[in-house]
Amino acid sequence: MYWVESSRTEDGPGGLITGISVLEPGVVGAEYAMTRGHLHAVADRSELYVGLSGTGVMILETVDGDSQVVPVSPGQAVYVPGYWVHRSVNVGTDRFSTLFCYAADAGQDYSIIERAGGMRSLVVADGDGWAVRTNPDHRGYRLEERP
Amino acid sequence: MYWVESSRTEDGPGGLITGISVLEPGVVGAEYAMTRGHLHAVADRSELYVGLSGTGVMILETVDGDSQVVPVSPGQAVYVPGYWVHRSVNVGTDRFSTLFCYAADAGQDYSIIERAGGMRSLVVADGDGWAVRTNPDHRGYRLEERP
Repeated sequence: MYWVESSRTEDGPGGLITGISVLEPGVVGAEYAMTRGHLHAVADRSELYVGLSGTGVMILETVDGDSQVVPVSPGQAVYVPGYWVHRSVNVGTDRFSTLFCYAADAGQDYSIIERAGGMRSLVVADGDGWAVRTNPDHRGYRLEERP
Repeated sequence: MYWVESSRTEDGPGGLITGISVLEPGVVGAEYAMTRGHLHAVADRSELYVGLSGTGVMILETVDGDSQVVPVSPGQAVYVPGYWVHRSVNVGTDRFSTLFCYAADAGQDYSIIERAGGMRSLVVADGDGWAVRTNPDHRGYRLEERP
């Protein structure tokens, strides 16, 4: 339902990981198909997304309670600043694909969303479109202990 | 003939500068219209370009003598590794525009090409297309002294 192809040309602090994320359309319960989502392990590392195909949104949330949902269509760029947990959601009927780019030393904390009981905002099917609902199970984010 | 719009959302080591570079078509002498070109002041910083419109090429060269010319059309991504001097050239008849993304701490050394007498490779008009010529004035790159 979701796959990523990426290229890590350089490992040093100057390298950028670049790739394409592809998310098939669908609805799971009331929620549109989504990526697992992550915060970067080096949490200040930002990321650029550019819409390539399909119709999606990006959910962006901070540890201290901010939550935003940003539409992404082909040709649109979304800048995810450091310290923002983020996830893509396919709200259309075609594949939603994006190009992404982030520092090679950023790493991923993929379990931060799971540890929080899910993201604060859910993107759900609503008639022919989508709507944002507050997730009653969300219990706040905690940063991972770093070794 | 050439302009750039860019966004620097964050200044820290985790920030990415993102923008669009637009190059009008044209020929100057035998050479196609080109950007000034640069190496990053923090020379190991890499950069991602994605073609948005028009038909261009990117000239990429290393201090130790490698030179490559890579075509860029809409939707194509070009990864410029650290330590590669790079410049865009419009080899078409429309505006050539690209999206770019690089680390906020990278900086620019814009004079490295001038100090070298131009890049090693020139992209020139050749019938209906373009060709690569060796620049007889190129005298090798020298990195800038950093304070």
